[in-house]
Amino acid sequence: MTPKGFRFAGVRCGLKNKRNDLGMIVSDVLAQAAGVFTTNFVRAACVDHSRDVISGGTLRAVVVNSGNANCCTGEQGVRDTQKMSEWAAAALGTEPNEVAVASTGVIGHLLDMAKVERGIREAGTKLGDDPRPYMDAILTTDLVEKWAWTTCVPGEEPSVVVDARFNANERPAPAGPYGVFYGVAKGSGMIAPNMATMLGFVVTDLDASGLDLPAILKRVSDRSFNCMTVDGDTSTNDMLLLLANGASGIRASEAEFEAALEGVCVSLAKQIARDGEGATKLVEIRVQGTSDPIKIARTIGESPLVKTAMFGCDPNWGRILMAAGRAGVPFTTADVSLSLLAGDEEHVLFEDGAPASFDPKRVSSALKSDHVVIDLNLGEGPSAKVYTCDFGYGYVRINAEYHT
Amino acid sequence: MTPKGFRFAGVRCGLKNKRNDLGMIVSDVLAQAAGVFTTNFVRAACVDHSRDVISGGTLRAVVVNSGNANCCTGEQGVRDTQKMSEWAAAALGTEPNEVAVASTGVIGHLLDMAKVERGIREAGTKLGDDPRPYMDAILTTDLVEKWAWTTCVPGEEPSVVVDARFNANERPAPAGPYGVFYGVAKGSGMIAPNMATMLGFVVTDLDASGLDLPAILKRVSDRSFNCMTVDGDTSTNDMLLLLANGASGIRASEAEFEAALEGVCVSLAKQIARDGEGATKLVEIRVQGTSDPIKIARTIGESPLVKTAMFGCDPNWGRILMAAGRAGVPFTTADVSLSLLAGDEEHVLFEDGAPASFDPKRVSSALKSDHVVIDLNLGEGPSAKVYTCDFGYGYVRINAEYHT
Repeated sequence: MTPKGFRFAGVRCGLKNKRNDLGMIVSDVLAQAAGVFTTNFVRAACVDHSRDVISGGTLRAVVVNSGNANCCTGEQGVRDTQKMSEWAAAALGTEPNEVAVASTGVIGHLLDMAKVERGIREAGTKLGDDPRPYMDAILTTDLVEKWAWTTCVPGEEPSVVVDARFNANERPAPAGPYGVFYGVAKGSGMIAPNMATMLGFVVTDLDASGLDLPAILKRVSDRSFNCMTVDGDTSTNDMLLLLANGASGIRASEAEFEAALEGVCVSLAKQIARDGEGATKLVEIRVQGTSDPIKIARTIGESPLVKTAMFGCDPNWGRILMAAGRAGVPFTTADVSLSLLAGDEEHVLFEDGAPASFDPKRVSSALKSDHVVIDLNLGEGPSAKVYTCDFGYGYVRINAEYHT
Repeated sequence: MTPKGFRFAGVRCGLKNKRNDLGMIVSDVLAQAAGVFTTNFVRAACVDHSRDVISGGTLRAVVVNSGNANCCTGEQGVRDTQKMSEWAAAALGTEPNEVAVASTGVIGHLLDMAKVERGIREAGTKLGDDPRPYMDAILTTDLVEKWAWTTCVPGEEPSVVVDARFNANERPAPAGPYGVFYGVAKGSGMIAPNMATMLGFVVTDLDASGLDLPAILKRVSDRSFNCMTVDGDTSTNDMLLLLANGASGIRASEAEFEAALEGVCVSLAKQIARDGEGATKLVEIRVQGTSDPIKIARTIGESPLVKTAMFGCDPNWGRILMAAGRAGVPFTTADVSLSLLAGDEEHVLFEDGAPASFDPKRVSSALKSDHVVIDLNLGEGPSAKVYTCDFGYGYVRINAEYHT
């Protein structure tokens, strides 16, 4: 289910072989908009452009290409990004400063602008309700499409999120008035010869007037995409955009709006982690206690020793404790308990500061599940979650065996 | 060449199969001593014990076991560490608080103290000038022994370091009066089923009276072992100890002492990086410029995308720039130049903010060298070095294919 008043297009302009590589999302009317961008000091031109145009708080459209990140391309790269926004604006009858631009792919190469121009023109003629061609156009070596949607019914509890991987059952529209949030993302597929880029686009037909979209998107991003790590590396092109066009005529409270957006973003983040390069499973890390549980969860999620143990289905609590202990956040070993949740079972590995007795073969067998939760309790205090994946031969194959 | 007044022993007490697993270093007289210890909040009992005993500034001996880290073993583990120091003291006719203890190996299991006691007794009877049995006793899955020594001649330039890997040519003793620094280390071999531990022991017969050994060792450690990373993980048992017994009767200036110690420690750090789990090469990262070049160098050195590119002999400058940019230290892409030094050649990949033209096949071929330098220039400012290794199938094999 997609929100009212948005149209999508995805075409193949030739930046990549045999796959869609140029996409557009267009709102029928000027939409409220907000964005979150990479913190990398090496940034693609499109990041600066999109940050600029979104600072006014509104957008009509997004144009994206894959196959070339247009990064480390100097002044020409800046001009090419600007051209993309101009061509898209011309195709849509709007202004370049109402068009965000995103790119993903190889860095250090200039865009083939003849292909891009042709692609943008064609995309302008193919806009429609089906988001799938767009979804395909932003993928790189992702193995699966990533999408999620939910409805927001003012006055009711948050709706279940429907998504590509974890809950793909369609369901009927709510009986009463509702708005729709729809999100697509691309994840951690390397694009030869460079690094992965995370792109996320969420559109909604709720009326967001009066809401502080940048603040909401920042908070939601901190609880979803910023809680997800594949290899700890941050791309030069990462970008998350939110457009709210009000076409449903429905308004929700800030809390309702934020909850629905968070549902979609958490789903997309989990889909990205699950489809990490070479990954065989989603690893969810829950940490309870200490002054900074997210820092500990992230350190565990980035530990190669923990991630290889998960790949090897090894219930290696020592590595998990080691990673927790090196995060720089004080705790006392005597307060620590650690469980793994996998295959519908909970396995206690460490309890109240001492190793628990468990059957390693049984736990190892449970760890073959494609969704494992590491549940670490360090005592009183706040809690945090991080989503990551395991780390195996596939990661090395994907990232070592390509030659520039 | 080993320093005067130190004796070494290494025996097999049965904590591991078929390999030495218990070692001692003994100084004939009470030596000045300093230590640097893991910052992990999950720490083995031996770390606390050794930090305590060394706080008085002197030591007679070090006793080490491999095969069991005695970590996460509660009060019993604390008592067992204490016992090790008592037994060693008894064997040597000294006091337990003059004996440091180090352990490396599996965590969460109690030591087999009958074996340890037998081993300590036997080691006490086998002390001699040859450090090799000791060197063997501290190794875990290290593929090679790691040692380095140098001489310190007051009033002269620092001597060349002789070591196991990079410069193994023996050479004659200096003509005039001199002291000797001798160091051994163990590195990044996983010990089933847990994490790697870095242990380093440096002994010298220089007279260090009047020198601030803890401060010197901290500075040297920050320029050697703390500039080395295999996978970013920090063990629960890491320890670096320095003993100076004055047996040569020679005194050196603080600068001379520190330079000789640094030579040995840098060599040991490079040997550990080169022998990282699954490594095929030593990767040295030099960063010049910005306010915090070591932070950038470390981020590059811990980036799985950079390390897999090095494994794949891929001159992937985009990943190196991406890793530099995500370190959180500001710089401007226009100021960036990047070269790789490998196989006696320098290859410029990126110059003054723009991709340089280079022959990828030729650079890839040069990257087959077992020592590659990434030389990143970000403009004016201080410089820093980090030692790491590449990241390939071997790392995954070693760390994923063991089952608890």
